[in-house]
Formats: sequence, structure tokens, C-alpha cells
Amino acid sequence: MTPAEARALFPVLEQLAYLNAGTFGPVARPTADAVRTQLDTELEQGRFGKEYFERMLGLRTEVRAALGSLVSASPEYVSLTGSTTDGCNIVLAGLDLGPEDEIVTTREEHFGLLGPVHASGARVVVVDADPEAILAAVTSRTRLLALSQVLWTTGRVLPVRELREQTGVPVLVDGAQSVGAIPVDAGGLDFLTISGQKWLCGPDATGGLVVADPERLRVARPSYFSQTAYEETGSFEPAAGAARFDPGWIATASLAGLLAALALPPEWRFERAAEQTARCRQLLEPLVDVVPGDATLVAFRAEDPPALVASLFAAGVVVRDLPGTGLVRVSCGWWTSDDDLEQLADALA
Amino acid sequence: MTPAEARALFPVLEQLAYLNAGTFGPVARPTADAVRTQLDTELEQGRFGKEYFERMLGLRTEVRAALGSLVSASPEYVSLTGSTTDGCNIVLAGLDLGPEDEIVTTREEHFGLLGPVHASGARVVVVDADPEAILAAVTSRTRLLALSQVLWTTGRVLPVRELREQTGVPVLVDGAQSVGAIPVDAGGLDFLTISGQKWLCGPDATGGLVVADPERLRVARPSYFSQTAYEETGSFEPAAGAARFDPGWIATASLAGLLAALALPPEWRFERAAEQTARCRQLLEPLVDVVPGDATLVAFRAEDPPALVASLFAAGVVVRDLPGTGLVRVSCGWWTSDDDLEQLADALA
Repeated sequence: MTPAEARALFPVLEQLAYLNAGTFGPVARPTADAVRTQLDTELEQGRFGKEYFERMLGLRTEVRAALGSLVSASPEYVSLTGSTTDGCNIVLAGLDLGPEDEIVTTREEHFGLLGPVHASGARVVVVDADPEAILAAVTSRTRLLALSQVLWTTGRVLPVRELREQTGVPVLVDGAQSVGAIPVDAGGLDFLTISGQKWLCGPDATGGLVVADPERLRVARPSYFSQTAYEETGSFEPAAGAARFDPGWIATASLAGLLAALALPPEWRFERAAEQTARCRQLLEPLVDVVPGDATLVAFRAEDPPALVASLFAAGVVVRDLPGTGLVRVSCGWWTSDDDLEQLADALA
Repeated sequence: MTPAEARALFPVLEQLAYLNAGTFGPVARPTADAVRTQLDTELEQGRFGKEYFERMLGLRTEVRAALGSLVSASPEYVSLTGSTTDGCNIVLAGLDLGPEDEIVTTREEHFGLLGPVHASGARVVVVDADPEAILAAVTSRTRLLALSQVLWTTGRVLPVRELREQTGVPVLVDGAQSVGAIPVDAGGLDFLTISGQKWLCGPDATGGLVVADPERLRVARPSYFSQTAYEETGSFEPAAGAARFDPGWIATASLAGLLAALALPPEWRFERAAEQTARCRQLLEPLVDVVPGDATLVAFRAEDPPALVASLFAAGVVVRDLPGTGLVRVSCGWWTSDDDLEQLADALA
């Protein structure tokens, strides 16, 4: 597959310089076809019976394996969730922390991580999104580091594995802006969340959670998928591995779509995304105040971000503003063309 | 709309006597069309921008109102969930119960209720699904009654409002087999779960939770929708009403489908469903050992339920067996025809 062929998979790219995968990835035709085929089957043949349930369970197995393979994790460590928020809530509720425990997090996290951190009841220690500051905040009461691998604001990469190694403290890594965007290895990470709808270009309300040691996290939010047998009090024999954390049914059509989306990316996905991001920085640096960053996000300062985003959209370029930060954010993927970036630069110039 | 017109909405009914809405309702053509239209828009125009988010938020508002209206609840008391399990988990986690607290539940609950009850950490008191037994189990330590309004096993109706009144103990009502099947009024119930995919014939992974007093339940599982403003520790200003419990993003296409599905039922929906259920009982009673029940489920004993379900399917009739109970279960809806029921009776005879 050439970059031009890759790009042709996504109808929205025919019309727009779509540079907003950090919110939602573009949807590819094969992904939409897989969703539609499943929906048509359900409409005509109903949603019932052995065949239907085996298809659904088979899709769960395949998606689990595909998500795992993406981050070098065996499927038994992968739970299927509806979002990264879901994953954070599962972890934070299952750790059973209290006010005497501390969680170290950063000033640049999304509410999808911060909300669950707050709800845990632990004392929340907030520091700058900087390895030194994070290390300095760890005490004997720290029970968890709750960190994005790639900051959603600037694209900066935090050395999550090294921080885990240096502190010996379990780490919950929000992979919302990393998995699918840059190479990610779940090895050495206690918990890693995955978004299906951003860099993986899957249907909305899909995602995953990798749990390194399923036996050591309580199932705080059981679903029918969590158990293999249960007593009348609800006490249950947990499903093997991280499937015990599956918070519930995921639409069968969405599973089919996510599986199709996971099969699309070419081998050169990460290389190409990195190249196009570098190119984007290079094009923008003479034009605007670009904030330092890594990964596949490029943020720059603007006087009136919403107005700028609107005027870029009028020029056929889709980016987003980050409320409260004065930043506009550009997302570059393996599908991003030179033309997309030049269209952005031209519109900014 | 006549019963024949109603029935013609559902393609699966052209081929099968589909009598399994207690698992999944049949999907109507307008519901599938609404899902497809939204998916096509997302494919061609992308998932971004003010228009897209306003559409999504507008759908959430409309679905909230439609679900509320169905159970005589104002929209501000309705949370949008992915399932009844979701709703049960939200309530049980938010109540912050401990081992000194007791929950009274019955021997005929689904794991979607029992799992969350167990995970709460409270002592679980299990009694027969009988009002007298439930009343007798209440002590000064009882913090919650966790009950199905309609038992998924037999269709029996529990007098949940009366039990709440007589005990003064808050009640979590699992409405999986009641909402959409029989008239339900959330008034006087502390918590009521709704399934979108069963009797409402909506897309899978949709549902609701009615919370009578949102201020008195902790938001144990926050999502971006839970807040209107937050601090860097994740501490947040909750969204107004029960929207604070919304556990996360629901696929926009699924919201569109659920809204379409909620608009379909004719005024005579409950009357017709009750009539057809009575007719079903009448037809089956001479043929098999029908278990006493109410609502729109009809259960009967079989020697080998899975084998019987398979042979009925071979005759074009879709029902289900209930593992471990020796029961086969028939679901009758407003779309069920006399022919469906006669086809079932003929196949059993």
C-alpha cells in the first residue's frame, strides 16, 4: 500500500485536510462497510441464537488479540472497554484507595483520567508534566502514577516506563494519544488505556485496557463477561485474565468495525506519521508559535483559537482548539498528505 | 397504525416468529435507517466540529427526554448508560456501602444486578422472589432493596413501589424486563434501570438510569459528561441532574437509532403486548407446563430446553432457554401476531 492508496481509504480526506485524529480519527470505507454489514444482518436476521452470540464472542476474541498485538501484550491481558475513561475508572475503582493514599498526576491530563483519579478518594498530588517533578512528588504513600503517555495538549511524550522503574510505583498510562499514533509497548506498564476512535480510526465508544496482573486488581464493576460462574449473592468465579474487567456489551457492529479498522494500517504507519508530523512542525514554525512536543500532535499558540479554528475550517482544514490553553492542535496520521499540511500552512500564512 | 402496519416495520418478522425481545428486541427499518444515515454522514463528512458535537449533544438531550417520558420522569433525572448493568454499577458504587450494610435481593436476579450488588462490599441477603420474604429480610442494617420489576425468569412482577413504601428502604429497580414491555412509572422509585436493546428495540449497548435524587448519590465513575468545570486534581462541579452519572460517550449513530426506535411504538403498545401475552399463555397451557407469571414473558418447563429451543428454531420460531432453570422463555411484544403464537403452539404440539 502506498501513501496515496492509504489515503484513498478515507472518504473524508477527499474533501478536507482532516487533521483532528486526536479527537476522532477519520473513518475508512472498509470500517464503515464492516459496521453496515453487521447492522444489515441484525436487521434482516435478528439478534439472537448460537450463531449471533458466537459471532459476537468471536469478534471480542479477535479485537482483544488485535489490540494486544498492537502494544505487544498477550490477549489475556486485554480488557475491552468503551473508552479510555472507562479504563481509568476500572483501574481507579479496583485499586480501593483511600484518603491516606496518594496518586501523582500532572497538570496536563484530560478529565477522562483526572475524574476517575478524583473519584478514587485518594489524595491527588498534581505536578508539572515533567519527569523530574513527577519523581520529586513520590512519597511512601504514593500508590499510583496516573500519566498520559502523550500529553493531549502538546504531544509531549512522558517516559512512563522509566518513571515506573525509577519509583517502583504502579503506573496507569493513558494511551489515548499514543496507541496507534506511535509505537507503544505495554511491557513494564501496570495499566494502559487504549482509545478505539482516535488514532485507530475505529467506531466511537470502543477501546481497551491492558492490565499486567489481572489477579491483583479487584473487579469493581462486574458485567456478565466478568464471570464464568456465580452464586446467588453475586459472588463469582472471575473470567480468565483481563476479560474479567470487561465492563459490558459493546455493539457487535462496532466490534466488527474496530476489527476492520485495526487491519488497515500499513507497516510504515508509525514512520509515516512521524515524518508527516516533523514536516508539519517545519512548515508551521516560520508561521506561528509552535509549542515543543513529540508524537503526532503539533500545538501552536493563537490569539483567538476558536476563531482561528473556524477560519481554517472555512479553508477546508480541520484542526481543534484546546479550551483554556490558548492553543490550536494539529493531528498528523499515516493518512496525512503533504497537501494537507501545505493547505494548513497556506491558510495560516 | 394497525397491528399489521406495526409488524411490517420489522424485517426479521417477515421470516421468523421472533419471540425473544427479553434478550434483544427486533430492529425496525426506521431505526436501522437512522443508524445508517448517521454513519454515512460520519464517513463522508468526518466526526468533528461544532455541528457534529451539537448533533451528538442534541441527540443525548432528546433520548434523555424520550426515556424519561416513557417512565414519567423529567429528563433531569435520567442518565444515559450503555446497559442496565451499567446502571446497577453506577448506583452500587455511588452508595459507598460497606460490610456492615445489607442489601436485600432475590434468588431470581440476573448477574447484571447481582454482580454490582456483590461488588459493593455490602452483605448480600438473598431471599425468594416474593414480597413477604423480601419484607421479612429487612433489618435496621438494610441500605438497599435490589430487585427486578419483572423477573427475567418467569415474567412475574414484583410490587417494587409498595415494597419501597412499606420498608422505607431505598430501592434499585432493574427495569430490564419491564420498561417498554409494561407501563412503568419511576415515581417513588429511587433508582430505575432501562435497557435500550430489549423491549425498546434500540441499538445494542444503549440504556438509561433514572435517579430520583441525583444530589444524594456520589458520582463514583465520572466521565467528561459528569462535569461542567473541574480543577487540576479532578475535583469537579457536577453537571445538573442525573446527567452527572453519564458513564461516557455513546455512539452517535446508536443514539440516533435509539431515538428513532423510541418514536415507533403506537399508543396501544402495552395493551396489545398484554393481550398477546395472555393469548400465548392460553395457547401454551394445554400443551406444556407454563410457569405462573405476569408482564410479557411466558416461561414453561421443558425436559431439554436447549434441544427444544433448537427444534423450535428449525420450525421458524425464536425463543430462548434459561440455563440452569429447566425453562424455555417466550417474549411477546406489541409487534407479536396471532400467527407467531400459533406457529409456536403448532411447533410444540
